[in-house]
Amino acid sequence: MKVVILPDSFKESLDATGVAEAIHKGFSSIFPNADYHLLPLADGGEGTVQALIASTEGMIETISVTGPLFEQVNAEIAFSKDGRSAYIEMAEACGLHLVPKEKRDPFKTTSFGVGQSIKYAVERGATELIIGVGGSSTNDGGIGMAAALGYQFFDQDGREVEGNGQSLLKVTSMSATNRNPKLSDVNITIAADVVNPLIGENGATYVFGPQKGLPANKLDELDQAMGKFYKIAESYLGKQVSTIPGSGAGGGMGAGLMLFANASIKKGIELVLEHLNVVEVCKDADIVIVGEGRMDGQTVFGKAPVGAAACAPPNAKVIAICGSIGNGSEELYNHGIDAIFPTIPAILPIEEIMGNAFNNIERTARNVASLLKGTI
Amino acid sequence: MKVVILPDSFKESLDATGVAEAIHKGFSSIFPNADYHLLPLADGGEGTVQALIASTEGMIETISVTGPLFEQVNAEIAFSKDGRSAYIEMAEACGLHLVPKEKRDPFKTTSFGVGQSIKYAVERGATELIIGVGGSSTNDGGIGMAAALGYQFFDQDGREVEGNGQSLLKVTSMSATNRNPKLSDVNITIAADVVNPLIGENGATYVFGPQKGLPANKLDELDQAMGKFYKIAESYLGKQVSTIPGSGAGGGMGAGLMLFANASIKKGIELVLEHLNVVEVCKDADIVIVGEGRMDGQTVFGKAPVGAAACAPPNAKVIAICGSIGNGSEELYNHGIDAIFPTIPAILPIEEIMGNAFNNIERTARNVASLLKGTI
Repeated sequence: MKVVILPDSFKESLDATGVAEAIHKGFSSIFPNADYHLLPLADGGEGTVQALIASTEGMIETISVTGPLFEQVNAEIAFSKDGRSAYIEMAEACGLHLVPKEKRDPFKTTSFGVGQSIKYAVERGATELIIGVGGSSTNDGGIGMAAALGYQFFDQDGREVEGNGQSLLKVTSMSATNRNPKLSDVNITIAADVVNPLIGENGATYVFGPQKGLPANKLDELDQAMGKFYKIAESYLGKQVSTIPGSGAGGGMGAGLMLFANASIKKGIELVLEHLNVVEVCKDADIVIVGEGRMDGQTVFGKAPVGAAACAPPNAKVIAICGSIGNGSEELYNHGIDAIFPTIPAILPIEEIMGNAFNNIERTARNVASLLKGTI
Repeated sequence: MKVVILPDSFKESLDATGVAEAIHKGFSSIFPNADYHLLPLADGGEGTVQALIASTEGMIETISVTGPLFEQVNAEIAFSKDGRSAYIEMAEACGLHLVPKEKRDPFKTTSFGVGQSIKYAVERGATELIIGVGGSSTNDGGIGMAAALGYQFFDQDGREVEGNGQSLLKVTSMSATNRNPKLSDVNITIAADVVNPLIGENGATYVFGPQKGLPANKLDELDQAMGKFYKIAESYLGKQVSTIPGSGAGGGMGAGLMLFANASIKKGIELVLEHLNVVEVCKDADIVIVGEGRMDGQTVFGKAPVGAAACAPPNAKVIAICGSIGNGSEELYNHGIDAIFPTIPAILPIEEIMGNAFNNIERTARNVASLLKGTI
């Protein structure tokens, strides 16, 4: 019996590797001799790099970069064995987890460290970059990243501005004169988990600004500034990116990488599934187990469980194990998922449920396996 | 494929019949043509009478009796078709659900109505009585019930006392002179869901008093009074009952029925399983589904799911669907239950989860069935 376990992370409680291990442990208690394949996934959000490098015999380097509040932070970059490919996760340099709640402020936070990571990777010889753009604390449209790559932005008095959200309000002109020349030799692919455009009511600022600490009464100001800044930059560089789906990912980092680094954009889950060769691994699977922290009607839109389910062969049972389920989860039955099991054992404080995620997942997997015993 | 569905109620959210129907609905969406048998259970607590009469072509009568606070309430009594057997549920006359939270006070509540129900049944010709003793608001040791059957209890001044918890403190003597003579012609069996003794730290007062509104600083007083009262009554009637397992059930109603009405006591679940002929029904089942509102390590002690699981044939899958699970639930795997699935979808307000019990159970049953599809 072949069992492929390919969950996404349970956000804020257990990473995808931990989820896969918990499922494996629970299943193994019933089927100790099955042929297990663990492929922790990610959909372009946090964890994407970790998922991608699992497929290479690569290495991880840690470098010091400018953090979201202009402090120094350590950021990991993964390289393939031959050094030609690099995997960068935006959240490493400017993730929301790096900013204490009371300091979250998209006017102040910068993506400068992402640009430094790119610079490091290309100068080390990488010619293929994959950049995951989820989980960021920034809404700077990638201006910080661009500045780190040599672009310069000026206010109306001709003074160069620092690259954060606040600067978007000030920029009136820019220069690409000092742009890092290595950028021309690298092929960058953005792994995005959302398809939001850069601006407007479905854009970066309105949709993701609030969770990054932007007060409701500032949404319009920053959204407008983002639009004005991109008008200037797009005009200067002769390229339109701000309406491309995913341009709003990572607080506008999607647009930034496309405009300033000539990146293309892919759905994170597709990129990950391709890199991990998931269709091939699942080819003769009897059971495919997917999962995510929360599954609901929205999960059908480019999320890992549905992407993974689509890789399962027709005869396999596809089972989802999740933290919780929400409205519309039954829609998933029409997207290749046979059954869905939330793992919450009882009405308990959220900290207790999250802190016990491994055990809750293991127990659920064990019970699912027990149902299947003697039948496969 | 034969599927036997025999859940207990999910207390405070859905009765056993509703639970069985929800499971049936969920399962039917995957297996529309299976052979379903729905047997809602009860373990001696509330719902026992309902479960028992399901097995007879009986009828239900409603009579007016004295309620827990000496008001009039309607209480149902079920009779078998031939009228020889009657099923009485203590909670009908003095259940906790009849007393608003702010009025719960075991010093004041009375089981008088239970005695009236017994009197009605025996005077109508019943010679076999089954009395379920769960869910009561009283901790009167059955003194109210005894008073309704003609027993008299007196304080130190020779005044007859009313039958409630408070009276236990006052009684110094008693009389059986006016005991209802029909009591000698009837065979009473108590269906109990607990095995607690009458008094002491595991007794009625200490274990169940608090949930009936007894403050912690009154536990000792009422426990002592209960002991003293039974010393007097046992001595007067020449019979010891207060240490028999289950004597503490129903606030001492177990002891009261044994002492004042010569009842015997059985585990409620055994009585129900016998009456519903569950072993026979399950004989050739492929799937047996049990359930209860909460399942944990305590569930192995005489609760419906484990009793029902024991009736399943060795080759059947035994699946538990429950509201929530607690510590030690894995112990149930050693008691005939293959897999356990709680039905909580997400961290939500308790009212929302309980109010949506039917849908949550139906969804879980559908997902369980989906796992089994093509395998049985």
